[in-house]
Amino acid sequence: MSKGQLVYSGKAKELYSTSEPDVLQVVYLDQATALNGLRKDQISGKGQLNNQITSLVFEYLSEQGIDNHFIKALSPNEQLVKKIKMIPLEVVVRNVATGSFVKKFAAVEGTVLAPLIEFYYKNDALDDPLMNDAHVEVLGLATAEQVAQIKEQTLALNQALITLFKSIELTLVDFKVEYGLTSSGEILLADEITPDTCRLWDLKTGKSLDKDVYRKETGDLIGVYEEVLRRLERALTKNN
Amino acid sequence: MSKGQLVYSGKAKELYSTSEPDVLQVVYLDQATALNGLRKDQISGKGQLNNQITSLVFEYLSEQGIDNHFIKALSPNEQLVKKIKMIPLEVVVRNVATGSFVKKFAAVEGTVLAPLIEFYYKNDALDDPLMNDAHVEVLGLATAEQVAQIKEQTLALNQALITLFKSIELTLVDFKVEYGLTSSGEILLADEITPDTCRLWDLKTGKSLDKDVYRKETGDLIGVYEEVLRRLERALTKNN
Ligand SMILES: Nc1ncnc2c1ncn2[C@@H]1O[C@H](COP(=O)(O)OP(=O)(O)OP(=O)(O)O)[C@@H](O)[C@H]1O
Ligand SMILES: Nc1ncnc2c1ncn2[C@@H]1O[C@H](COP(=O)(O)OP(=O)(O)OP(=O)(O)O)[C@@H](O)[C@H]1O
Ligand SMILES: [Mg+2]
Ligand SMILES: [Mg+2]
Repeated sequence: MSKGQLVYSGKAKELYSTSEPDVLQVVYLDQATALNGLRKDQISGKGQLNNQITSLVFEYLSEQGIDNHFIKALSPNEQLVKKIKMIPLEVVVRNVATGSFVKKFAAVEGTVLAPLIEFYYKNDALDDPLMNDAHVEVLGLATAEQVAQIKEQTLALNQALITLFKSIELTLVDFKVEYGLTSSGEILLADEITPDTCRLWDLKTGKSLDKDVYRKETGDLIGVYEEVLRRLERALTKNN
Repeated sequence: MSKGQLVYSGKAKELYSTSEPDVLQVVYLDQATALNGLRKDQISGKGQLNNQITSLVFEYLSEQGIDNHFIKALSPNEQLVKKIKMIPLEVVVRNVATGSFVKKFAAVEGTVLAPLIEFYYKNDALDDPLMNDAHVEVLGLATAEQVAQIKEQTLALNQALITLFKSIELTLVDFKVEYGLTSSGEILLADEITPDTCRLWDLKTGKSLDKDVYRKETGDLIGVYEEVLRRLERALTKNN
């Protein structure tokens, strides 16, 4: 399968068409952004780390019966995924109160949550506003039934991810995922699951092993992403 | 029943205790605010108009079987209400897309909505952020059951208000209400229903007969509030 035309150029990834109409080639970029793109840096090696991390996570999820768009890794920073019609929602799960949730609602940092699911409208021009379920429906982003399915799938995903990260001594504090619709209308997990999109706290030290080291400028992004990959490889790679 | 101590001083009203522990005296003020209090003006006559308008509306609602805190008007700008434990939510109903909803989500102005219910955290320091149902529950503002009850009561209220305003040639575009808990734990409609808290568009001309004339500085607040009161009196007052 050969790399075709660039079909989307994002902040963290590029998407290319392939000879298969239902397959996309994703190139993970060496770029980090914060503040909705206002801060931007080239960080050599980040693309490879995220491609490898999300590949391991998506493979694990498939084994756990949680379907997703991942087909296979192609090179250190490239992978093939099923091309789907993305739903423009950032689906956020919070297991522990921190970050924007604490600021926005004056919630107590560290509070264990039920978990909490939030929908944000994925729209940079609007600054990704929080929505309630009725907004999602009235704006035609998803039907009430699809909203219910997304929540159900997201809770199952959360359980699987909590278990995975706990096995490598990380607390899954919160994360963001995206879903799309397959040609047969099914909701499928897509995009990426990496330290860019998850808050991961070391079980013993409480330290962040995620993009917060870049957001807050408290550490070396490559170092902590390498640590996450190393732990995942140890836990998940068959030949180890 | 004599007016006791000032127990709360708000932007639009003052609350006083009375000789009855379960009764409050509300004084409607001659003050208008916009932009969460940033703009503020004294507008002579506004308090009397709002007190009279909300009294007529609450009486109508009681007759329609929609319970609320209103007991009786005492003077042109004062009324007695049942004192309840307020739930810090601004419950917004939108029948037609306009205002902040259109801006926030790039929705099409004038779109007829299902209606749409929104919850905002009533917290000036946090700038009244939008919440989803899970936020309301996790922050302990209301239980899941109470949230469901608030939605149900609010939809019934919306129907009654649409009918009332239609009868006086006004479209109820959107409105904000607040609820509280009675000593026996029941959810009760409270606060006010006035042109400060409703968007009312004249059926024929499409012109705003509400606080938008103050927010947008497009007309005379007293003139349009008088027009609303006059129409309500004609429709609702028995001796006319
Ligand atoms: N399986 C898929 N099929 C089609 N599009 C996908 C699939 N998985 C992810 N996408 C989309 O690919 C794009 C990836 O871009 P990228 O993550 O780099 O940038 P972005 O999401 O636009 O910005 P940011 O992630 O910084 O907010 C996103 O628009 C995402 O929704
Ligand atoms: N029945 C009631 N019992 C107790 N408190 C009530 C009752 N009805 C309304 N209230 C409260 O009385 C206060 C009325 O104050 P007011 O509306 O002037 O100002 P505000 O709500 O603080 O500010 P603003 O309305 O400008 O956002 C509000 O806090 C409201 O929640
Ligand atoms: Mg993205
Ligand atoms: Mg008020």
